[in-house]
Amino acid sequence: MESTAAEQEAFVAAVALTLQEFLAEKGTLLAGISPDALVLVDSIASLVTGGKRMRAILCYWGWRGAGGAPGAEEIIKAGAALELFQAAALIHDDIIDRSDTRRGGPSVHRQFGSLHAGRGWALDRERFGHAAAILTGDLCLSFSEEMFASIGSGSASRARAIFNLMRTEVMAGQYLDILEEVSGPTKPHSTAVARAAAIIRFKSAKYSSEHPLVLGGALAGASPELLAGYSAFALPLGEAFQLRDDVLGVFGDPAQTGKPAGDDLREGKRTVLVGLTIAAAGEADREFVDTHLGRQDLSDADIDSLCSIMVKSGALTGTEAMIADLSTAAFTALAQLPIDGAISEALSALGRSAVSRTS
Amino acid sequence: MESTAAEQEAFVAAVALTLQEFLAEKGTLLAGISPDALVLVDSIASLVTGGKRMRAILCYWGWRGAGGAPGAEEIIKAGAALELFQAAALIHDDIIDRSDTRRGGPSVHRQFGSLHAGRGWALDRERFGHAAAILTGDLCLSFSEEMFASIGSGSASRARAIFNLMRTEVMAGQYLDILEEVSGPTKPHSTAVARAAAIIRFKSAKYSSEHPLVLGGALAGASPELLAGYSAFALPLGEAFQLRDDVLGVFGDPAQTGKPAGDDLREGKRTVLVGLTIAAAGEADREFVDTHLGRQDLSDADIDSLCSIMVKSGALTGTEAMIADLSTAAFTALAQLPIDGAISEALSALGRSAVSRTS
Repeated sequence: MESTAAEQEAFVAAVALTLQEFLAEKGTLLAGISPDALVLVDSIASLVTGGKRMRAILCYWGWRGAGGAPGAEEIIKAGAALELFQAAALIHDDIIDRSDTRRGGPSVHRQFGSLHAGRGWALDRERFGHAAAILTGDLCLSFSEEMFASIGSGSASRARAIFNLMRTEVMAGQYLDILEEVSGPTKPHSTAVARAAAIIRFKSAKYSSEHPLVLGGALAGASPELLAGYSAFALPLGEAFQLRDDVLGVFGDPAQTGKPAGDDLREGKRTVLVGLTIAAAGEADREFVDTHLGRQDLSDADIDSLCSIMVKSGALTGTEAMIADLSTAAFTALAQLPIDGAISEALSALGRSAVSRTS
Repeated sequence: MESTAAEQEAFVAAVALTLQEFLAEKGTLLAGISPDALVLVDSIASLVTGGKRMRAILCYWGWRGAGGAPGAEEIIKAGAALELFQAAALIHDDIIDRSDTRRGGPSVHRQFGSLHAGRGWALDRERFGHAAAILTGDLCLSFSEEMFASIGSGSASRARAIFNLMRTEVMAGQYLDILEEVSGPTKPHSTAVARAAAIIRFKSAKYSSEHPLVLGGALAGASPELLAGYSAFALPLGEAFQLRDDVLGVFGDPAQTGKPAGDDLREGKRTVLVGLTIAAAGEADREFVDTHLGRQDLSDADIDSLCSIMVKSGALTGTEAMIADLSTAAFTALAQLPIDGAISEALSALGRSAVSRTS
């Protein structure tokens, strides 16, 4: 146990160092183009410094469970590529969701907006912030790819197929998510839960949990059976994780989650929690949800009303029950994985923290 | 001559077919996630159907000049990857520049805006359009990368280094471009031309001309000397091309360019043409340019005034002189390239059309 914790810590440190060196090199390149362009890399660097590195860690244990050597360069690079991809996704997500904060600091488009305001530049501050953040996200996406491509040969082509699939699926899932925000109210209430479940599968569970674990396994040359076992564990785990995230997004403590209360409701996220609410609430409550969700000007009283509808409709309890069922499925599959006990325990610890966290 | 034209046509057709097959496969994948997600691939497919395929063609002749075989799979994939990258860049550029049209049709964010309006969806139409287009561009960027990574081994790692550099440089150049729009008026008039020249170098000339040609050469295993010769031809050519573009963006015929008159002026593009104007115009004219450039509400009379200032300041003539000088440098370098005469002639034809075009 202690040695897996130390090993994981060493891996995380190695990923951080690789990212730091990579971005320092990119900083030199950009500074050569223009000192003004350096800010692009700085904002990426500060973003990848934070975060839980959950995807990189899952990837690592997927690698180790399939017989990959501790601390090998391939897996460090794969982990760094996943972290850069996640940073890129966050930068663009925050524009799409109009989130002002990220990992305790201002989101990237807000950083550029502040730069604009601070220097007294011309034209529209917000527009500049969005444009600069679109470009920063694109750059970060390219960096992720560059890092992944540097892994080299061996089993990299099987891992590459998963990396490709992961990217396509998460972007499609993100699209379905924003589509649901605008088209959800026009679609049948009876299928709201199913639609929300599809979104979290592609946008979150496969992307943040299943693919990283399977990618690590594939990189180490795992058998198809082991990879299927990884999926049977990580997919329900990822779904449970996202359901937990949705609950925290509405009922969590802002001091712990780092996101202002009501942010998810103002964004109009049509989560499984919302789907269950819509499916079970009475006519008046449903009407209230449909007309208030996604409004930027929600008052504290509106937020309280929405929360109360979610509780009394049984949607909160229902979501917690789904989390419990998915967790059971995940941990049952984990127990059957033909991997080293210490590695299984490391995955179990990750799983427990994913579904029972408070932030 | 006739055979190079036929060969180039066959290459362009092969790139188109490869793109079509690749996107059909992605369409199947996305439809499996949700039929609603198919629109993402459809909008990419319609975008890559058009265009002059200039980058792919330059890449092809770079490959052929370095001894690459006609119609080889590697170069077709490299060409397709460049086309996908360009499509991704256009999708995000059009959001940044707020362009309503692209290649004769609505830009991608406008397509999604229309979808929103047509279906009577909730919340903000424009916001949905931008969000969906950010995701479509990200998906297209990933597709580009996936296509490039499928080239395989051989000289692919040298080409990969160029592909990586190309992406970083173009994104940095795009950032410098939007930065100049907002910060240009606060910076010295005397350096406006130099700043604009740096932007076109990284945003356009290296990206659209030098890197594609060099990438093709590197993929075929060209010597460093040949690659340096390619650069000596393609960099000034690309600069001349962009200067021509800037002139057409202000003085071109909208019916031929496909862009509404004054679009570049409303966007506030700080081109070399604008830099020369600012450096040479009288105080009152300069003041007029600084206060009008980048205003969305420019009237036809404002546009006429801006054009007239550009003419009488000598900026238009100055830009044409720069185009002539750069062309001379490019064609002198081309004449010295140790490549087959027919290939040299093909590059020459491309060069001529790039600098003397009307659309």
